[in-house]
Amino acid sequence: MENGSQQWRFHGNNRLKSTLTISLRGIIDMLIGNLGTDDPRPIIPLGNGDPSQFPCFRTSTKAEEAVVDALHSAKYNGYAPIAGVLSARRAVANYLNRDLPYKLTADDVYLTSGCLQAIEVALAAVTHPGANILLPRPGFTFYESRAAYENLQVRHFDLLPDKGWEVDVGAVEALADENTVAIVIINPGNPCGSVYSYEHLKLVAETARKLGILVIADEVYSHLTFGNTPFVPMGVFGSIVPVLSLGSISKTWVVPGWRLGWLATTDPNGILQKSGIVESITGYCNITTNPATFIQGSVPQILENTKDEFFSKLIGTLKEAAEKCMDGIKEVPCLTFPNKPEGSMFVLVKLNVSLLEDISDDLDFCMKLAKEEKVIIVPAGIAFGMKNWVRITFACEISAVEEGMRRIKAFYQRHAKKQ
Amino acid sequence: MENGSQQWRFHGNNRLKSTLTISLRGIIDMLIGNLGTDDPRPIIPLGNGDPSQFPCFRTSTKAEEAVVDALHSAKYNGYAPIAGVLSARRAVANYLNRDLPYKLTADDVYLTSGCLQAIEVALAAVTHPGANILLPRPGFTFYESRAAYENLQVRHFDLLPDKGWEVDVGAVEALADENTVAIVIINPGNPCGSVYSYEHLKLVAETARKLGILVIADEVYSHLTFGNTPFVPMGVFGSIVPVLSLGSISKTWVVPGWRLGWLATTDPNGILQKSGIVESITGYCNITTNPATFIQGSVPQILENTKDEFFSKLIGTLKEAAEKCMDGIKEVPCLTFPNKPEGSMFVLVKLNVSLLEDISDDLDFCMKLAKEEKVIIVPAGIAFGMKNWVRITFACEISAVEEGMRRIKAFYQRHAKKQ
Repeated sequence: MENGSQQWRFHGNNRLKSTLTISLRGIIDMLIGNLGTDDPRPIIPLGNGDPSQFPCFRTSTKAEEAVVDALHSAKYNGYAPIAGVLSARRAVANYLNRDLPYKLTADDVYLTSGCLQAIEVALAAVTHPGANILLPRPGFTFYESRAAYENLQVRHFDLLPDKGWEVDVGAVEALADENTVAIVIINPGNPCGSVYSYEHLKLVAETARKLGILVIADEVYSHLTFGNTPFVPMGVFGSIVPVLSLGSISKTWVVPGWRLGWLATTDPNGILQKSGIVESITGYCNITTNPATFIQGSVPQILENTKDEFFSKLIGTLKEAAEKCMDGIKEVPCLTFPNKPEGSMFVLVKLNVSLLEDISDDLDFCMKLAKEEKVIIVPAGIAFGMKNWVRITFACEISAVEEGMRRIKAFYQRHAKKQ
Repeated sequence: MENGSQQWRFHGNNRLKSTLTISLRGIIDMLIGNLGTDDPRPIIPLGNGDPSQFPCFRTSTKAEEAVVDALHSAKYNGYAPIAGVLSARRAVANYLNRDLPYKLTADDVYLTSGCLQAIEVALAAVTHPGANILLPRPGFTFYESRAAYENLQVRHFDLLPDKGWEVDVGAVEALADENTVAIVIINPGNPCGSVYSYEHLKLVAETARKLGILVIADEVYSHLTFGNTPFVPMGVFGSIVPVLSLGSISKTWVVPGWRLGWLATTDPNGILQKSGIVESITGYCNITTNPATFIQGSVPQILENTKDEFFSKLIGTLKEAAEKCMDGIKEVPCLTFPNKPEGSMFVLVKLNVSLLEDISDDLDFCMKLAKEEKVIIVPAGIAFGMKNWVRITFACEISAVEEGMRRIKAFYQRHAKKQ
């Protein structure tokens, strides 16, 4: 039927053209496409924050049982309410309340399809023509992609490697103007592995208040801390500044594929309600999809019944893996890290290409590493705007981290400049 | 901390203000809010296309087993690829291939979080500044909400009640211009219960080709037909016009809460690839969320192992329920239907308010019916742009349909104009 004379009026959406190249998923797919094919060794995946494939990171049996129970009840096969199943929203509120000086209710919680959708909802709720948002550099690229899609202008403030990747508060004040609506804080930090102190978070809250902007607190790695600094949720400062707190079970229960997250309005003064942000959150939830209802139905059991031993084992494994990773990096002269990671699943490492013979930058390093050693790590230039840094995930089986670091060392030795 | 002097710079997103009032979920929530509180009788839910709460509509045990198997395998706790789990995409392609004159592959299939997200992806992929899309009236309001959010201009063509709710093809040709990119066809029809013949679908395909626009074929009710007209997928005409075929397991397996749908490019000539639509689909999938990975992992078993008896029982129940519904409507003089439904879960019924004493329109009818009789049906004026029509779902337990129709008759008798 097809012939040259037929004219078609449709074409692709140009706004979507750039999303593949700048997304972490797109970058990792590209690296996987560059893997050496004749190499019989297993891939060492130090790219993604998803250790679910490793037996030592298998989720809690209580969580699996909770999902099966909800499914077999046949009470959760139908559509969920717009904001989510009530018992699950209440359970999330109670879970967050353990760390807050005031009490959230189910009405403050919106269930989302993973933390990604919570980001999508938050940015859609605050955007309007001309608005801008302050994002951390380095940060999580999904924010850039969604902001671009929403025509929300992005302004980057730096995180300071020499100060534990703290927010450059002076830069934040200099960047903000009358069209700034929000600042994003990711804590524990991706890609830096940083954990912010109570005092630093309070300073960020006070700065946001001074500027009259809200805080979007991405806490998807909440409670995954193994250093000296305990996790403090930004919502603790909700009476200073209204906070949209984003979270999920993806990381803490090692089930990113279950797609169960939330957005909570941690805002005891009700400012988000008065300003119309709450109405916009509901409005956006109304024109997008929900998490699977039976997974929502399992949330109360998951949050309430998972044993402490599960988390202490998980954090113990992450801590040991982080140490093995740091030990390995110390053996590779072209890689240095400003701080030991204290949380999340990552460390951001500086790459000194001047020590290498034939590597032009971080992307080249990561592409050749994938090809020659079947090790996946993330080039931070295209991924996070941090040219000649790389992000290494240590959330893998210990033996895989060790093997990965051995291969990176061998790769360095092969490409090191001859003296 | 809060005081009157603090100024906040953020406010809600005005584009989202209208979504709640025009969404079906919003309308049904409003009706439920109007239910009589002193009435001890059960609610009769003839509003939503979600019969999963009724034991006779419980999904196949094979489908539940498939999900439990995928979960217990622990292979699907992690992130899925952007377009979905490969085995599931292949299974959907094979499922669609049963009814197509050519063969789709996994590469033609994108898994989505229910058919709602497939609509979201399709509209995002075709939109661009100035573009417009042709939508059926009556149709499914989610299209209007998403199109408005995407700044995609909407033009409505009428479906013709006296011709089995067929597309007014002349109106389509008159509406289209050089900025028209696509036409949406919902078959089997929501809210009309219509099923289009092979010849009518072919005429629509030829019309779209003449106009140079693609077809978005919403086939979420595929195979749920119980009249004289068999279901024909629009993709059969993919060599005449490129088709984005949208579907899900939500309706055919009665599990809308599982949030598993798909978008398939049924386009043997590869026009969607050449025109950049495929790249835009991937680009949008990349900045939104996936269905739960273990539910994706269960799709091959669900599609391949569900027994024919499950579907024959389901369709038998729908057919009987539709007949009971029609019998009931005939007893209510103010309600008439132009055609018996032949598919989906709905019938669109004309309301003659001139026969009623104190009912001003369809919304008033539905609100008072909810209050006085605890029966939920959908006012088609605000829901579908069909003033003084109502949509009745017959996808309920037979006894509930009968009870609902008895209550509607009693309501009519109480409100009928005295002669």
